[in-house]
Amino acid sequence: MSEAATKAERLSRTLAVDAMGGDSAPDVVVAGLEIAAERHPNAIFLLFGDETRLAPLVARTKRLKNCATIRPTSEVIGNDTKPTAALRMRDASLRRAIDAVAAGEAAGVISAGNTGAILALAKIILKTMAGIDRPAMAAIGPSARGDVVMLDLGANVVYDSRNLVEFAVMGEVFARIVLGLPAPTIGLLNIGSEEMKGDDVLRRTAEILRESPIGKQFHGFVEGHDIAGGTVDVVVTDGFTGNVALKTGEGALRLVGDLLRKVFTAGIAARLAYLLARPGLKRLREWLDPRRYNGAVLLGLNGVVVKSHGGTDDQGFAHAVDVAMDMIVNNFNARIAANVALIPSQTKAVQPEPTAG
Amino acid sequence: MSEAATKAERLSRTLAVDAMGGDSAPDVVVAGLEIAAERHPNAIFLLFGDETRLAPLVARTKRLKNCATIRPTSEVIGNDTKPTAALRMRDASLRRAIDAVAAGEAAGVISAGNTGAILALAKIILKTMAGIDRPAMAAIGPSARGDVVMLDLGANVVYDSRNLVEFAVMGEVFARIVLGLPAPTIGLLNIGSEEMKGDDVLRRTAEILRESPIGKQFHGFVEGHDIAGGTVDVVVTDGFTGNVALKTGEGALRLVGDLLRKVFTAGIAARLAYLLARPGLKRLREWLDPRRYNGAVLLGLNGVVVKSHGGTDDQGFAHAVDVAMDMIVNNFNARIAANVALIPSQTKAVQPEPTAG
Repeated sequence: MSEAATKAERLSRTLAVDAMGGDSAPDVVVAGLEIAAERHPNAIFLLFGDETRLAPLVARTKRLKNCATIRPTSEVIGNDTKPTAALRMRDASLRRAIDAVAAGEAAGVISAGNTGAILALAKIILKTMAGIDRPAMAAIGPSARGDVVMLDLGANVVYDSRNLVEFAVMGEVFARIVLGLPAPTIGLLNIGSEEMKGDDVLRRTAEILRESPIGKQFHGFVEGHDIAGGTVDVVVTDGFTGNVALKTGEGALRLVGDLLRKVFTAGIAARLAYLLARPGLKRLREWLDPRRYNGAVLLGLNGVVVKSHGGTDDQGFAHAVDVAMDMIVNNFNARIAANVALIPSQTKAVQPEPTAG
Repeated sequence: MSEAATKAERLSRTLAVDAMGGDSAPDVVVAGLEIAAERHPNAIFLLFGDETRLAPLVARTKRLKNCATIRPTSEVIGNDTKPTAALRMRDASLRRAIDAVAAGEAAGVISAGNTGAILALAKIILKTMAGIDRPAMAAIGPSARGDVVMLDLGANVVYDSRNLVEFAVMGEVFARIVLGLPAPTIGLLNIGSEEMKGDDVLRRTAEILRESPIGKQFHGFVEGHDIAGGTVDVVVTDGFTGNVALKTGEGALRLVGDLLRKVFTAGIAARLAYLLARPGLKRLREWLDPRRYNGAVLLGLNGVVVKSHGGTDDQGFAHAVDVAMDMIVNNFNARIAANVALIPSQTKAVQPEPTAG
C-alpha cells in the first residue's frame, strides 16, 4: 500500500474519544472502550484527556493498551458549561477530539459530555456536509416491529421543509446502516395521519418526499403512537417535538418498569411468580434497556459524531462506540452525500408560519 | 324555589349527549350513560340522535329511562366528515347537543364523535369565555405520583405566550376539580429544564407565570420524562407537542403491555407466574387502563365540552361522563373565570419566531 492508502485505511477505523465527558469519566469511558475493543478488534482509539488519570486506567486493560493512544489535554468542559464558554476552552478534551476529526486523524468522535457543547463545537469545527443545511440528532428506540430511528432529537428547534427532507434522507441512510434494513420506510410525525393535517411546512415536506427518489419508502404522516407501534422504520420530526417525544416515551417505559418492580416484590407469591417468569421478563428488560439504545448520532457533519448518555455505564458506552464504529466502517457520510445528490433541489422551502395572536 | 332558581338548579345537573358519535354508537353511549347514572343519581341526560334506535335501548335500561330524554335528530356526522361539511349539517346529533348548551338547556355536552367537528362546532356555537383567547384540550394520564393533567392536546397548533398562560390557568382549575388537589403544581414543557432553554415564547410564558398569582405553583420548565415522572400536576404545552407527547406515551405503554402479554403466555411456568402475580398485575393494568383516562375536555368555552375516545366501551364512556359531571357540578367555568381575572393583562404576547432558512 502507498503511504496515502495506508493513512486512509487507518483513518477508516480510528475514533477520537472525549475521555473526560460524562458523569463517571474517565473510568466508565475506558471500561466501555475495553468492551468495544473486543467487538471491533481493528479499531484505533485516540483518547483525549487527563494523562495522569488515563494512563494507569489504560495500562490495566487487556485490549485497549494495544489499540489506544492517549492525547493529553488540560481542560474539561463541565455539564453546566455554556456552549459560548465551551468554545473558548481551546485545550478541552472534547474540543481536541473534534479537532482530530477535522484534521483527518480520526473518522469520528464520541463523547458522553455536555450535549450543548458537543453540538456547538461539532457544528463550528466540522461544518455541515455539502448539500446539507442543518445537522440532525438521531437515535434508535424500541418498537413493536423491532427498532425505530427517530430524528431530529434536539439539534434544531428552528427548521423548514428543506431541513425535514434532509432529516428524512439522512435518517434513511442511518437506518440502512445501523438497523441493516435494505429499504427502510419513513414517516413524518404529525397530529393526524390525514393528508390535510398539520401546517404548511409538514404538508410541503410530505409533497417533496413523495416525489423524491425515496418516495416509495415514504409512508406519509404518522402519529405519536406510531413511534413505538413500529408503523415505520424512520420517524422524522423537528428537534423540539422529537426531543419531547423521545423523553416522553422513555418516561412512560420507566414508569411501567418501576411499577412492575413493585408488583414482583409485593409478597412471597409475587416473588415466586418473578422467578417463574424470569427468563421472559429478563429478555423484556434487556430489550427495553436504555443502554441498548445509547448513542445519539449527529448526522450531516463532515465526520461521525456520537453522543453517549452522560449517566450510562460501561456497557452503555460500549454500545455507543458500536454505533460510531458502524457508521465509520460503513462509510456513512459518503452514502448520505450520494443520497442527498438524488433529492431534487427544493426551490421554495416552506417555513413555519408566524402565529396569529 | 322560584321558577328561575328551579331552572338554574336543573341546568346545573343536565348534560347534553351526542348519542350517535363514536364507533359503536348509540349502543355503547346508552350503556355507558346507564353506568354513569348510578354514580350520578341526580344527573339529567338529553340524548340527541336517531329516536327509532335510541328509544328501545333506553327503554331496556333500569336507571336511564327515568333520567334521560330523547331529542330526535336526523343527521350524523361521520368520522371522515370534514369540519366545514359538519358545520352545514344543521340537524346533526352533535350540532343539536351543542346547541342545547348554548340555549341554556344543558350545562355541558359529551360526544365520542369526530374530534375536528367537535372542536369546530363547539368553538363557533359556544364561543370562548370572556378573558380567554383560545380554548385548549386537556386530559388526565398516569404518572409516578398519581395522575397528571396535560394540555393543550391538539385544539391549537397556532399559539403565543398569552395562550400558554391561559392554558396554565385553566389546567390549574381543572386539576383542582378533577384531581381534587388544593394547589396543583404546573410545569411548562420544554427540551431542557434550564432557564435559557427553549424559544422566546416559552421563556416569556415562564416569566408571566412566575409573576402571576399562581406563581408559587409554577415549577418552571419540565421535560418529556417529567410527564409520567410526576414532577408536576399540570403539564402545559402547545397543541402539536401535546398531541404528539400524549400519543407517544400511550404507544409506549401499549408496547410494554403487548410484550408483557407475550411473556406471560410463553409456556406453563409463565402462565403459573401470571396466576401468582395476578392481583398486582391486575391492579397495574387497571391503573394504566386507557378507559380510566377517557374523556378529554375542551376548556375555555361557554359550557363544558367533553370528548370521549371513539373506540371506547361502556366503562370508558361512563368515565368520560364522570369527568363532565365533575366539571358541571363543581362549576368549572365560573372558577376559571375567577382565576383568569387574577392574571395581569399581558400587553406583549410573544409569538413563535418565523424560522431562518
